[in-house]
Amino acid sequence: MIPRYSRPEMANIWSPETKFRIWFEIEAHATEAMADLGTIPQEAARTIREKGGAAVFDVDRIDEIERETKHDVIAFLTHLAEIVGPDARFVHQGMTSSDVLDTTLAVQLARATDLLISDVERLLAALKTRAMEHKYTPTIGRSHGIHAEPTTFGLKLAQAYAEFDRARTRLITAREEVATCAISGAVGTFAHIDPRVETHVAAQMGLKVEPVSTQVIPRDRHAAYFATLGVVASSVERLATEIRHLQRTEVGEAEEAFGKGQKGSSAMPHKKNPVLTENLTGLARMVRAYALPAMENVALWHERDISHSSVERMIGPDATVTLDFALNRLAGVVEGLVIKPERMAANLAMLGGLFHSQQVLLALTVAGVSREDAYRMVQRNAMRAHAGEGRFKDLIMADPDIAVSISPEALAAAFDEKAHLRNVDVIFDRVFA
Amino acid sequence: MIPRYSRPEMANIWSPETKFRIWFEIEAHATEAMADLGTIPQEAARTIREKGGAAVFDVDRIDEIERETKHDVIAFLTHLAEIVGPDARFVHQGMTSSDVLDTTLAVQLARATDLLISDVERLLAALKTRAMEHKYTPTIGRSHGIHAEPTTFGLKLAQAYAEFDRARTRLITAREEVATCAISGAVGTFAHIDPRVETHVAAQMGLKVEPVSTQVIPRDRHAAYFATLGVVASSVERLATEIRHLQRTEVGEAEEAFGKGQKGSSAMPHKKNPVLTENLTGLARMVRAYALPAMENVALWHERDISHSSVERMIGPDATVTLDFALNRLAGVVEGLVIKPERMAANLAMLGGLFHSQQVLLALTVAGVSREDAYRMVQRNAMRAHAGEGRFKDLIMADPDIAVSISPEALAAAFDEKAHLRNVDVIFDRVFA
Amino acid sequence: MIPRYSRPEMANIWSPETKFRIWFEIEAHATEAMADLGTIPQEAARTIREKGGAAVFDVDRIDEIERETKHDVIAFLTHLAEIVGPDARFVHQGMTSSDVLDTTLAVQLARATDLLISDVERLLAALKTRAMEHKYTPTIGRSHGIHAEPTTFGLKLAQAYAEFDRARTRLITAREEVATCAISGAVGTFAHIDPRVETHVAAQMGLKVEPVSTQVIPRDRHAAYFATLGVVASSVERLATEIRHLQRTEVGEAEEAFGKGQKGSSAMPHKKNPVLTENLTGLARMVRAYALPAMENVALWHERDISHSSVERMIGPDATVTLDFALNRLAGVVEGLVIKPERMAANLAMLGGLFHSQQVLLALTVAGVSREDAYRMVQRNAMRAHAGEGRFKDLIMADPDIAVSISPEALAAAFDEKAHLRNVDVIFDRVFA
Amino acid sequence: MIPRYSRPEMANIWSPETKFRIWFEIEAHATEAMADLGTIPQEAARTIREKGGAAVFDVDRIDEIERETKHDVIAFLTHLAEIVGPDARFVHQGMTSSDVLDTTLAVQLARATDLLISDVERLLAALKTRAMEHKYTPTIGRSHGIHAEPTTFGLKLAQAYAEFDRARTRLITAREEVATCAISGAVGTFAHIDPRVETHVAAQMGLKVEPVSTQVIPRDRHAAYFATLGVVASSVERLATEIRHLQRTEVGEAEEAFGKGQKGSSAMPHKKNPVLTENLTGLARMVRAYALPAMENVALWHERDISHSSVERMIGPDATVTLDFALNRLAGVVEGLVIKPERMAANLAMLGGLFHSQQVLLALTVAGVSREDAYRMVQRNAMRAHAGEGRFKDLIMADPDIAVSISPEALAAAFDEKAHLRNVDVIFDRVFA
Repeated sequence: MIPRYSRPEMANIWSPETKFRIWFEIEAHATEAMADLGTIPQEAARTIREKGGAAVFDVDRIDEIERETKHDVIAFLTHLAEIVGPDARFVHQGMTSSDVLDTTLAVQLARATDLLISDVERLLAALKTRAMEHKYTPTIGRSHGIHAEPTTFGLKLAQAYAEFDRARTRLITAREEVATCAISGAVGTFAHIDPRVETHVAAQMGLKVEPVSTQVIPRDRHAAYFATLGVVASSVERLATEIRHLQRTEVGEAEEAFGKGQKGSSAMPHKKNPVLTENLTGLARMVRAYALPAMENVALWHERDISHSSVERMIGPDATVTLDFALNRLAGVVEGLVIKPERMAANLAMLGGLFHSQQVLLALTVAGVSREDAYRMVQRNAMRAHAGEGRFKDLIMADPDIAVSISPEALAAAFDEKAHLRNVDVIFDRVFA
Repeated sequence: MIPRYSRPEMANIWSPETKFRIWFEIEAHATEAMADLGTIPQEAARTIREKGGAAVFDVDRIDEIERETKHDVIAFLTHLAEIVGPDARFVHQGMTSSDVLDTTLAVQLARATDLLISDVERLLAALKTRAMEHKYTPTIGRSHGIHAEPTTFGLKLAQAYAEFDRARTRLITAREEVATCAISGAVGTFAHIDPRVETHVAAQMGLKVEPVSTQVIPRDRHAAYFATLGVVASSVERLATEIRHLQRTEVGEAEEAFGKGQKGSSAMPHKKNPVLTENLTGLARMVRAYALPAMENVALWHERDISHSSVERMIGPDATVTLDFALNRLAGVVEGLVIKPERMAANLAMLGGLFHSQQVLLALTVAGVSREDAYRMVQRNAMRAHAGEGRFKDLIMADPDIAVSISPEALAAAFDEKAHLRNVDVIFDRVFA
Repeated sequence: MIPRYSRPEMANIWSPETKFRIWFEIEAHATEAMADLGTIPQEAARTIREKGGAAVFDVDRIDEIERETKHDVIAFLTHLAEIVGPDARFVHQGMTSSDVLDTTLAVQLARATDLLISDVERLLAALKTRAMEHKYTPTIGRSHGIHAEPTTFGLKLAQAYAEFDRARTRLITAREEVATCAISGAVGTFAHIDPRVETHVAAQMGLKVEPVSTQVIPRDRHAAYFATLGVVASSVERLATEIRHLQRTEVGEAEEAFGKGQKGSSAMPHKKNPVLTENLTGLARMVRAYALPAMENVALWHERDISHSSVERMIGPDATVTLDFALNRLAGVVEGLVIKPERMAANLAMLGGLFHSQQVLLALTVAGVSREDAYRMVQRNAMRAHAGEGRFKDLIMADPDIAVSISPEALAAAFDEKAHLRNVDVIFDRVFA
Repeated sequence: MIPRYSRPEMANIWSPETKFRIWFEIEAHATEAMADLGTIPQEAARTIREKGGAAVFDVDRIDEIERETKHDVIAFLTHLAEIVGPDARFVHQGMTSSDVLDTTLAVQLARATDLLISDVERLLAALKTRAMEHKYTPTIGRSHGIHAEPTTFGLKLAQAYAEFDRARTRLITAREEVATCAISGAVGTFAHIDPRVETHVAAQMGLKVEPVSTQVIPRDRHAAYFATLGVVASSVERLATEIRHLQRTEVGEAEEAFGKGQKGSSAMPHKKNPVLTENLTGLARMVRAYALPAMENVALWHERDISHSSVERMIGPDATVTLDFALNRLAGVVEGLVIKPERMAANLAMLGGLFHSQQVLLALTVAGVSREDAYRMVQRNAMRAHAGEGRFKDLIMADPDIAVSISPEALAAAFDEKAHLRNVDVIFDRVFA
């Protein structure tokens, strides 16, 4: 997480101020539940809520206390006691630090995921708009980087839409994975706290109750969460890579909008480089990398060890902030993408209709030629066309083996360009209906 | 995937014989759909189904053809033509190799996941049985590897149960991610094939239709799938690590059953080593590692490149076979686990009741001592107990600062051992009800 | 490691036959050293060497014994005793299984690395040959996929040569990392064996002595080794990616040789796809992935646990076999690469000399224009050229601001194409001299 | 990189101030070389050096310019021009941004590695001191977490010393990998700059010349670098894990020094947790994770794309700062480690001498018993001892099969404890001599 690749909305979720506010909320809700259960005085709970609710927590002061105690939650509680006064002794009763820390992480990840989901929704909206604009814009489909058969630019974007729609679903599932609350004490046995306190805090914080915690919320949840971010980032990389390819000088079918005043290169002023999507490719590598330590965090020792903590202090912000930034950057790129149908048309025409080869192949087999023979007939003419010995259609028409195998009309029909786009509507209905 | 760590049920899913059989099924269903649509003769579809259905495909012959054509699907189709005769020309019409390959992978992964889910269910059953046996068996809970407060052995297993129940849900979701069918042609436009063929094949093969494919099924699905296996493997590692810890000489609270005739060490005949769970730790590392190339596979170029193929030829079998083996091995370990309540009791007693410290702390705050003061009073006596200057309870009782702060009865109540287990039922209800 | 991506030379290193032969060599050398030290009878050592040396170890028999004992080294020793007779009791004295296993792994990795080094040398030879052929073949250099300035095709290959020359050095270092021998007993203390036995075995097996082992050779060595393979694989990916880009339909500057009889696509007979280099991209992902579990293997518990073993049974063969296959495939691709200078020339000319922009920029600053102003003058004309409003040189020559800033001669000199290649010799000397 | 896990020495290397200062140095050296070559006026070079050398670069101002130009090097050069005046037009002539950026990264990584090497040296010194203190302190060696045979605590530390000595060597190699300079222009052809400028800058900045760059320094170098940090971090994890194990309540053989005022747990005041080494385990996961995107960075497109940049902006600081922090923390832990020989002695005695089993086994084979029979005799008594049926030595002495196979004297000698430590000196000589 570095400012260059951060948006404030997401970065704020991870600020000390936000963190301490959530800590307080959890502690306050817990004291209220305890007061309702008669464990502590109602008056104390009210005092805590009022004084703590009104206070601005002093991050520097808390840090100062932590330097002595080497324990962050104790430092906060000490500071809270400075604010609340004697009633502070009712705070955190029967709880353990992780009750606060893990529940707070759950709140932060849930909020972060809400942002990520709305990021994906912005991207989906952009993809849909541009897909509709170019629903029928023909462009060559490429497998292996080699011209295959025509498709439409809208279909490319429809694919991306479907992929990010899956990303959205995955994020919703990931949010459910991590949005749990544990207020269960030192080893998760509720030895010194009533389970109903947990139920109350969970409800107030918008979380589910963790069925069985062991001082900590189990880290398979977080592993599943960060793995999901890695998968979503990989989809970011895919669309970014597509745009990078399209912007290549020789392809030129689409390009990132170029800001006014922007300089492409310190040395070569003419260049318009796909730097945003290249950047996204790199950011995707980072988000993906964070999935690994999250998986290594699962196997904590016995009821818990604290090895996961340093990892999460880093990847909690790093993964969510980076993916949030990336999704927004990608949405912006798609919204502003300069799309060039004329270059698509020119590229489509490059190989002189070679992309009809499969139609010819099919027509030959329908006409009774064996698949093997038909393949050979088409391939030899394709190779000659490729070698510049003539246009594919002309060569096919002139091939004597083909001429004796199929009627001229059936052969001509195999060169119908419209055939390739006849099912675009079907696919769009599947994706957008 | 090596025989040492493979079970035949899973390995068979990935055999050439299974693969070619699925290929044939897909092609046969597709020809039947085409025949129903009137694209090809009904008679041809019947011949294909009958002759292909009765045939045993000759893996060596197919390999031989592939060595020449350097294309596996063409090699298969050529062999199929040898079996079916002239009607073979109606096979694969308007389809592309990936229609067969990707749909086959979907079938294999779906079947593999069914096995994985039943593996998890075997493990869940074992965990539940052992958890019930030891629901109230007291054992020390440990955070940081250090004695914390009592829990029960049943709770440890209940936690594992809840974790693998999540694993089960994740596997079901992962199966849905990959169980899709694409029969959409060269760049996914259905240029030469009716989308209803895809619908028919999908239904027959027990898959959903892929809404938009581009020659290939998009690889974000597979990335999500293999990432899920990595998360499940991490849970395997967690439980395996727990058992390894429990079997340590100094801990001795549980151990893997030791087979008759088994030798623990070539040099040290007395040793009973947790080799199965250590092995599981290593296997988990492998399954986790496979998630990464699966994520890197997502960003294929344009409508597809084939870089994902070599990865999947490896991790398809490797990840599923290894995880299947690991889950079964782990289930076996849990089923046979030698559990030693007497060692648990001895370990619990090791620190002379120091684990009551939080109860004392709470009692002091309830009696009106500030949290800070209470913490200091308890800690200093805990440190003395730790240093061997006396039993914790005796030291606490003798502390004059404490004596003036709390009644002897309230203090004695803080040393009640039963308090720690009073919510075991609540947690079991959450997990198993 | 699957047959499709294996070469027999490398696969054989990992066969059971090879493994048992190395096990025997280690045991035999150890007994000879013990005999020389007087620990065991010379006659016994001779018998062991002769009978074991002449025997063909029966892999099935050893497997059968292992199924009972669940210990591979004991199974082998039992089988060896069947061959050698009573003197077999002098085999393995004071040793532990890992002495044999780890030293064997060292031998296998050393041999594997020798193959990998010779693979790289084949690749280096191919790169040098093709680089020399195309030392001065002009081609456009591309940054961000966008035309930048001219370079030569030879320089592209010289870069790859330099990179794989580094790969060669890294492999030599990696070989040194792992080529150590440990014969130090149960916890590495030489409690029951003389350190001179280790020295002798090391010398005979071509290894260095491991200074301090703890039953096992420390796994940081193997982590460094597999990480190195991951880096080398990443270089494979880079060159493979370059070729994939060059073979794109729109670029067409180079392509993989296309075998006779090879079929590009089951559906589109005209296609010549860069399938070998795409395949290499996937294989690189796999080799890279294996680095991670190797790193996770480092932190074994205390003097050793066996979690590393399952990982190494997999990645030992998988990583070396796959990288060996990949390096050879890449060497073959480079050797046979179809290079198309005419397409390079055509692509170079595409943008009408826009690549002279930096020369113009420099000429303007030399003529006294500030860098900022010069940049603006050049950029605006570059943008116009890019938009199709004229050839870059014509636009520059016609720009009145430029005309007043620089002499026509100096400006014309900035369009000299030869300038770009004047230091090719310097670079070639650095790389190949 | 977060303040909690950063040391200022390392963090400063990555500050904007440091970066701009290095940028200036590179530009200034380059202009001086150009002046010496007569390309630009000597006076200009002097002015640039003097004014730029005296200036404090205004980070906010540079950021402001970058917001407009979206190009960091241009922003810096613009700011430099504000400081230097008209002669600034001679700065950066014929260079490309990456010449500055990549050479700067080389300088930063070289400096960072110097710190890391000195961190390792601090750690080595601590390990040596403590190893010497406890050279002969007996402790049980453990394989699989199970008591094996005695070793010494000094040997444990000697192993760690040898491992970090290898880490030191690896860091030196890694530094050489990345410490190269490229000043070669837009696509690395020296089209507009004399290669002697590069030679001069390299020498002045303490770097080697990059033999062939392509606008960028090839990223296989950085991949090798960050992979090395991942390996070193894994060694940190190993030693940290060892200490965590030793500090377990049941083991108690060593523990982290506990700071005055430190609080172990908010809930359980008695606890002394190995939080530093647990933290190191987590940090190691992070450093390891950064190796992956570094490897993915290698395959840049053609002469370069900028996808590596965002990755390196993150992992450059993150990996070096985190590893620096970890190494220092680990050194501190080792320096202050509380080592408890009395607990080691108690643990050694736990199993009643069972660790003599291999000596007995050996003595039996020397006495003529077959290995198989000897193994069975020893194992059955070991199992009985393990089951609490008597002390191992007593059981062995009483076994009638053993009694008839070996003399009482030879059997008694097999229970000599000193034998285990007789080669400690040999190993120490290997490691420390």
